[in-house]
Amino acid sequence: MADGFVHEIRVGWGDCDPARIAYTGHLPGFALRAIDAWWEWALEAPGGWYHMEIDRGFGTPFVAMRLDFRAPVTPRHPLLCHVRPTRLGTTSVSFRVDARQDGRTCFEGEFTCVFVEGGTLEKRTPPEDAAAAIRAHLP
Amino acid sequence: MADGFVHEIRVGWGDCDPARIAYTGHLPGFALRAIDAWWEWALEAPGGWYHMEIDRGFGTPFVAMRLDFRAPVTPRHPLLCHVRPTRLGTTSVSFRVDARQDGRTCFEGEFTCVFVEGGTLEKRTPPEDAAAAIRAHLP
Amino acid sequence: MADGFVHEIRVGWGDCDPARIAYTGHLPGFALRAIDAWWEWALEAPGGWYHMEIDRGFGTPFVAMRLDFRAPVTPRHPLLCHVRPTRLGTTSVSFRVDARQDGRTCFEGEFTCVFVEGGTLEKRTPPEDAAAAIRAHLP
Amino acid sequence: MADGFVHEIRVGWGDCDPARIAYTGHLPGFALRAIDAWWEWALEAPGGWYHMEIDRGFGTPFVAMRLDFRAPVTPRHPLLCHVRPTRLGTTSVSFRVDARQDGRTCFEGEFTCVFVEGGTLEKRTPPEDAAAAIRAHLP
Repeated sequence: MADGFVHEIRVGWGDCDPARIAYTGHLPGFALRAIDAWWEWALEAPGGWYHMEIDRGFGTPFVAMRLDFRAPVTPRHPLLCHVRPTRLGTTSVSFRVDARQDGRTCFEGEFTCVFVEGGTLEKRTPPEDAAAAIRAHLP
Repeated sequence: MADGFVHEIRVGWGDCDPARIAYTGHLPGFALRAIDAWWEWALEAPGGWYHMEIDRGFGTPFVAMRLDFRAPVTPRHPLLCHVRPTRLGTTSVSFRVDARQDGRTCFEGEFTCVFVEGGTLEKRTPPEDAAAAIRAHLP
Repeated sequence: MADGFVHEIRVGWGDCDPARIAYTGHLPGFALRAIDAWWEWALEAPGGWYHMEIDRGFGTPFVAMRLDFRAPVTPRHPLLCHVRPTRLGTTSVSFRVDARQDGRTCFEGEFTCVFVEGGTLEKRTPPEDAAAAIRAHLP
Repeated sequence: MADGFVHEIRVGWGDCDPARIAYTGHLPGFALRAIDAWWEWALEAPGGWYHMEIDRGFGTPFVAMRLDFRAPVTPRHPLLCHVRPTRLGTTSVSFRVDARQDGRTCFEGEFTCVFVEGGTLEKRTPPEDAAAAIRAHLP
């Protein structure tokens, strides 16, 4: 775990635009898939956000994201998305995602989510096991 | 033009996730569609980025985006994306997008792009008509 | 109504792949957006499938689709999706979608859906107003 | 190879709609990703369609697809997409994709593509190694 959780994405032809690189509009979605997969891994239960919402009754909608794009993403190499939580608030959590191909950073992002009740979207504190999973992986 | 350019998006069932709101991963793409449509409108030529890359030989890849999510987006109302350029640099341009439904802001974002040669992705200054179109709509 | 319902889609840069045409993987989604919009129009209630599922308690999941691709789709012209129901069964409905740009057919498809209870996905007969809306537009 | 090539897809929260199942509009795209990955595997060169278009100068656009949806797709299990070519014509190739979760078929599809010159989209015969790769995996 020295390097934390890595989610691998196969970038395909259909992810690319006529400039022959992955379309920027898809890149935030790649980071979100990686965070979804992080939850699956951290909670040790299949399904990630789907499991959290439907089986556990809580959600983590996004309130902010910031992305910097460093190098084009292409289908030449797998996209390795390194995910780690960076901050746990009373009702919020922040993540950092570094997405790399062939040894270089393609983009990096910071994402902040709030904990809410499933269904109502009302703010709440995280379930204890979720908070513990985050704490276990904070820097 | 007092209120600037507005691009309307029909949010559909397929844009929504099990929380019954538009999936966050799609929202940056909505903003990008609106900026693409802004270029079409500002250059008075059909195609937006497609026209710029293929007919004009230049592109405007993104180097950064920042989004704040204020309220859920749903299929109940059209999503009105207000787009305006906020800064023109020597080789870059920034845009602001405010996305509203039913009178309230759902999300807002800032986006920075660089001008590049089509094909090579090498940085360049904007074509004069593109720079003029941006200047004409700066705040 | 001689020509039936038409849903217009703005094809963007991000819909295109490196062959400079809209990626095939997006085209079924365009047709589905058009059918979703058809329901909104036919039921005279905003939201389409979202309204049907959440406010009315029924859904229409797809059981089959068949598409033929005749000509590339590009951002050069709006994509006009002509939608009409072609068959109403006891618990099913079929649609035909013809998608045209600049006067020629780009793709055409046939889609069959079943009526189900919201939530349970159990097969059912359509609500009377939905059946009537379909019948009103059958060829 | 008794069972042929299998491409695994992680279905996520963002792939699902408010009915809590993967949105139908995404399923053809899953099948296409699997065919793209099949080419990568069959040609033993990274990139699939991207490699074929950009490094090899040929493409395989779709002319038809037929899908039957048997059971909902969810994030509960990986989606295993079994891909095999079913027919090699003079200038065309057909594929079958069976997509399974947890031992049952969720959807199955047939897809027909034509071989074209990269750039021009003009019909052509397949390169010999591509034809050989297809023949090696025909039923």
